Amino acid sequence: MVYIYTKHQLMGVLAIGIHKFFTSLNDLERIFRAPGRFKFEEHNVAAHSWKVSQYALFFGTLEEMHGAKVNWKSLYEKTINHDFAEVFIGDIKTPVKHASEELKQMLAHVEEKMMEKFIKEEIPAEFQEIFFERMKEGKDGTLEGRLLEFADKLDQFYESFAELKRGNTDKEFIIMYQQALTKLLQMPLKVSVHYFRNEILKDVMKEDTQIDVAKLTNEILDKIKPQD
Amino acid sequence: MVYIYTKHQLMGVLAIGIHKFFTSLNDLERIFRAPGRFKFEEHNVAAHSWKVSQYALFFGTLEEMHGAKVNWKSLYEKTINHDFAEVFIGDIKTPVKHASEELKQMLAHVEEKMMEKFIKEEIPAEFQEIFFERMKEGKDGTLEGRLLEFADKLDQFYESFAELKRGNTDKEFIIMYQQALTKLLQMPLKVSVHYFRNEILKDVMKEDTQIDVAKLTNEILDKIKPQD
Amino acid sequence: MVYIYTKHQLMGVLAIGIHKFFTSLNDLERIFRAPGRFKFEEHNVAAHSWKVSQYALFFGTLEEMHGAKVNWKSLYEKTINHDFAEVFIGDIKTPVKHASEELKQMLAHVEEKMMEKFIKEEIPAEFQEIFFERMKEGKDGTLEGRLLEFADKLDQFYESFAELKRGNTDKEFIIMYQQALTKLLQMPLKVSVHYFRNEILKDVMKEDTQIDVAKLTNEILDKIKPQD
Amino acid sequence: MVYIYTKHQLMGVLAIGIHKFFTSLNDLERIFRAPGRFKFEEHNVAAHSWKVSQYALFFGTLEEMHGAKVNWKSLYEKTINHDFAEVFIGDIKTPVKHASEELKQMLAHVEEKMMEKFIKEEIPAEFQEIFFERMKEGKDGTLEGRLLEFADKLDQFYESFAELKRGNTDKEFIIMYQQALTKLLQMPLKVSVHYFRNEILKDVMKEDTQIDVAKLTNEILDKIKPQD
Amino acid sequence: MVYIYTKHQLMGVLAIGIHKFFTSLNDLERIFRAPGRFKFEEHNVAAHSWKVSQYALFFGTLEEMHGAKVNWKSLYEKTINHDFAEVFIGDIKTPVKHASEELKQMLAHVEEKMMEKFIKEEIPAEFQEIFFERMKEGKDGTLEGRLLEFADKLDQFYESFAELKRGNTDKEFIIMYQQALTKLLQMPLKVSVHYFRNEILKDVMKEDTQIDVAKLTNEILDKIKPQD
Amino acid sequence: MVYIYTKHQLMGVLAIGIHKFFTSLNDLERIFRAPGRFKFEEHNVAAHSWKVSQYALFFGTLEEMHGAKVNWKSLYEKTINHDFAEVFIGDIKTPVKHASEELKQMLAHVEEKMMEKFIKEEIPAEFQEIFFERMKEGKDGTLEGRLLEFADKLDQFYESFAELKRGNTDKEFIIMYQQALTKLLQMPLKVSVHYFRNEILKDVMKEDTQIDVAKLTNEILDKIKPQD
Repeated sequence: MVYIYTKHQLMGVLAIGIHKFFTSLNDLERIFRAPGRFKFEEHNVAAHSWKVSQYALFFGTLEEMHGAKVNWKSLYEKTINHDFAEVFIGDIKTPVKHASEELKQMLAHVEEKMMEKFIKEEIPAEFQEIFFERMKEGKDGTLEGRLLEFADKLDQFYESFAELKRGNTDKEFIIMYQQALTKLLQMPLKVSVHYFRNEILKDVMKEDTQIDVAKLTNEILDKIKPQD
Repeated sequence: MVYIYTKHQLMGVLAIGIHKFFTSLNDLERIFRAPGRFKFEEHNVAAHSWKVSQYALFFGTLEEMHGAKVNWKSLYEKTINHDFAEVFIGDIKTPVKHASEELKQMLAHVEEKMMEKFIKEEIPAEFQEIFFERMKEGKDGTLEGRLLEFADKLDQFYESFAELKRGNTDKEFIIMYQQALTKLLQMPLKVSVHYFRNEILKDVMKEDTQIDVAKLTNEILDKIKPQD
Repeated sequence: MVYIYTKHQLMGVLAIGIHKFFTSLNDLERIFRAPGRFKFEEHNVAAHSWKVSQYALFFGTLEEMHGAKVNWKSLYEKTINHDFAEVFIGDIKTPVKHASEELKQMLAHVEEKMMEKFIKEEIPAEFQEIFFERMKEGKDGTLEGRLLEFADKLDQFYESFAELKRGNTDKEFIIMYQQALTKLLQMPLKVSVHYFRNEILKDVMKEDTQIDVAKLTNEILDKIKPQD
Repeated sequence: MVYIYTKHQLMGVLAIGIHKFFTSLNDLERIFRAPGRFKFEEHNVAAHSWKVSQYALFFGTLEEMHGAKVNWKSLYEKTINHDFAEVFIGDIKTPVKHASEELKQMLAHVEEKMMEKFIKEEIPAEFQEIFFERMKEGKDGTLEGRLLEFADKLDQFYESFAELKRGNTDKEFIIMYQQALTKLLQMPLKVSVHYFRNEILKDVMKEDTQIDVAKLTNEILDKIKPQD
Repeated sequence: MVYIYTKHQLMGVLAIGIHKFFTSLNDLERIFRAPGRFKFEEHNVAAHSWKVSQYALFFGTLEEMHGAKVNWKSLYEKTINHDFAEVFIGDIKTPVKHASEELKQMLAHVEEKMMEKFIKEEIPAEFQEIFFERMKEGKDGTLEGRLLEFADKLDQFYESFAELKRGNTDKEFIIMYQQALTKLLQMPLKVSVHYFRNEILKDVMKEDTQIDVAKLTNEILDKIKPQD
Repeated sequence: MVYIYTKHQLMGVLAIGIHKFFTSLNDLERIFRAPGRFKFEEHNVAAHSWKVSQYALFFGTLEEMHGAKVNWKSLYEKTINHDFAEVFIGDIKTPVKHASEELKQMLAHVEEKMMEKFIKEEIPAEFQEIFFERMKEGKDGTLEGRLLEFADKLDQFYESFAELKRGNTDKEFIIMYQQALTKLLQMPLKVSVHYFRNEILKDVMKEDTQIDVAKLTNEILDKIKPQD
């Protein structure tokens, strides 16, 4: 057996500091969400991350107006980095992620290992600690972690809403819409959930849609009572 | 002359609060940068905004490591919102923007007026002040304003670099590369410029490229001396 | 401040006669109409210009059959050139164009200045006069000017019709359809309008469409009486 | 054997006058030139037709400036309609067209029959004669027929030039470039050929290109002497 | 008249054995089915061929389970090669194919001649006989020929079904669906047709669709009685 | 916590027999190979599978001509099904697959579990055994298993070759080309490897390419001696 290039040479090809990290951002413009499903419009992970950072800025502001203390640096870091790991593993189809608890954990483990490898090999030593902190799972129990989760679900909500509005009859998008909406209404973020329920959903249900989104929405609203 | 719908009705169609703002974010996924030019890869404004927010996070961190005080909320707001106005006016081709000082000011004025109209008609009253603040031109003299400008130029640098690397012989991309590089090396951000010049450019020039980017880069480096 | 290339050098890059004009035609294949809006099908400005020249040929022929005198050279020039200016400024979103009379005039002025600059710098001296004449606003009061306007509106009519037929529920396309239809029925081109109203619209309303186009059409027909 | 729909019903579906013709124009935006070949940029038949009408307008003007008498209506009709038949038969790959004289004639016959069928079934009786005249093969020996042929070849020239400029190494584009250039230089249109040879080719050869177009061009120029 | 390259040179460019055949497979990824029609989703001929080979494998297995003797090598060859000729002639629009018996035969003849030429010029002598056998029309009266025809129609069935499900109101897809279904139900493949009619159609009619596919299907089922 | 739909209901949505399997084939037209990397041309998994089945048919025939006994049904099944599992998990980026032996095994395990789940839930009982057999890893030590592996590598070879030919300077494609070539030359398939080495590579190295493929190829050929 003959090896054509050594591991060391391969490293040499790749390990080129922050420039390597910056060019890898471009890769996320070529990773599309929910691969394999028919959609009227595709969304790449870079654009998704930006929309999540926009939603989070709005709801962070809203929470602040109602007295919360927001760590803006943390929210900024969490939202723009939350899907960076997809550069390694792509947007694994959601059914896979939820096939079983065991498979879900396996995949999380794979992602974590790939990230660790990337940081150790690509990021200059003086920034490694910062990157480890920044790239770890952001959806923790802090206010910023919950805002990230809320904003990420909201983009799933809007992506499925847009497909239903345009008449995509694939069941997956109805399920995706129901799941996102259910999750959003139950998030431990009282002010944001209240605003979403009472202001945003009202406007959502006024829109003309090919599939009856208002009915779908009301079915869920009937089941999930407002957080007192 | 008969009018089919009244201005009031048209308002009713459009003025639906934050939901309207959130769905307009999706529009920026359909606005492509540098329209009309041949490119091997297209970039939408949403993904561009995300990359800018990533570069700014890195250089803000670097400046902070060297003693600067960064207002992270401001940097977050500035980077993710800096091209929102393109939702109204598209990515007007750069040659237009720079055709003359008069035309440039006219277009800035048009954009400003459109934004004002949008905020007054679409954004609920309690958020209008925040949106006016957030959506105004972000490239001011503050540290965050300069980081935004640096990060925005850096994306122009990387977009043109990628085209030259793949062999795009259109002169516009050589000019775009030269302009971005020149501007970056002269930005009043000593620490960031130093890192860019000494670390990032070194890696850039090691890459295999169809068009001789190392030569182009060295020509500029020879002319612009390092900031002492 | 250091300048890397001189204005003269930049000129040298660009000012290369009719070859430059011919290659700029290709740019219009990369400018898409109504940028930022969701559409089931995109249309570039080059293809749009061709469809306009086809409609105009048909209605010019019809007017001629009913006794009008058509200047075919003028109609040919007007239709194929009417959107050439978008090579400089893109397809500025319609809402911008109509935001206010002042903004509209500003943009028209910008376009005019860009065209002037282009002709002076790119077109050989012996053709400049011809290009100035050919590239100026074509929608004047002549028969050919009115045929151009009619044909241009007709393409807006067909573009919005196709979106409604396929179920695009975005309000903008309903508004676009209503506006185009209203305008078409009121054009000062008696023979063409009569044929459009009595022959073409009849067939349009027979089509199966996801959104009820026949109803939309009848609402407008009820309000705008036939030109006797 | 059971037939589900009658020929008569099928007719009813399709035979809906000029509206049918107008919507069929849209089909040509979905027919791509040189199908099956790798290209850095695709071109649809609608946009191609527009570019041909632009080239023809320029060279018609040039011939007129040198004393020729141009029938503008004919040139207008010929250029915008010259590829309409592709709506029936697509852009049959060039190798097929030229596989043998017999096959070429067979395909021309097929196209002609389809066009005849279309006009008889879709076009209202009062316009059928005009359409038969307008849709027949336009490349005859008249000045306008020769201008059409010249303009059509010129677009083949520019399409292959753009691929070579960007580094498409597929032999087909070199062959296509050589064939188009050879044909253009030999067309019986003295003024136009002279201008193309002395003005346009000079600028073409100044461009930076990945594949050495200047060398290819000079090889052909050496073999084909200028028309006295 | 000057010829730039000789026929012999052109041969030299092309005649490079099995490598040439292998790279021509890639061309079929760029030939799209039903060119010129509006579709929500495009299908290339390579992917179509794969789906046909999948359907045929299933129905071949089913027939075998019911006692038939399948020549698997033949079925394999027939399914993956059945549209290879489109590399020469593209996916000629169906209406052309069926315009008249004479035109249909002409086109079949063109295809055959092109294939013959290709095999003689591109395929090494020792494989020519095999390729002649393999590339000839596969839809003969053998079990494998009938399975190919069934599988090919089934993909037309599924392509039109998917368009109707998503709300494509173009009449062509209704007609295509009716034709494919009618043909499938009448194929001389008793076991396969029975399974398709009783198992697959039942599931098809349970799906949510924008256009009423169940109704369309039942209309055909009413007219075509089950094969005894 | 409220659940909106039950697991049973979700089953009902999905478990619809062979129809479900047939529509899932369409999903593979939307899964693209090597996601996230810049390519001049994208390839979907359906088209890839077809090309693999073509290469395998050729080399199977070649082996048969030299005395081997080919199980054609097995080769047919193996080649067209070998990437079906990507319908669940996408085309996980190659670096992930090879990050570590542990991760590789984890991912193989995930895929296997998803396939098992799919077959049990979607495939009618009478076909489950056949599907389990057909969908298991096909690259075993049989002649057909080795032909599959050879053909699969050959498509990687051709995909990277095409990118290098067109000037893609991303290192990944050089590495991919070297790996595929190395693997192909070492496969335990003496006749096929010999033909590939002596006939196909010779033609490959004659092609004009932007990146020096002949040199890359010769470097590998020098290191890997012919199988005696």
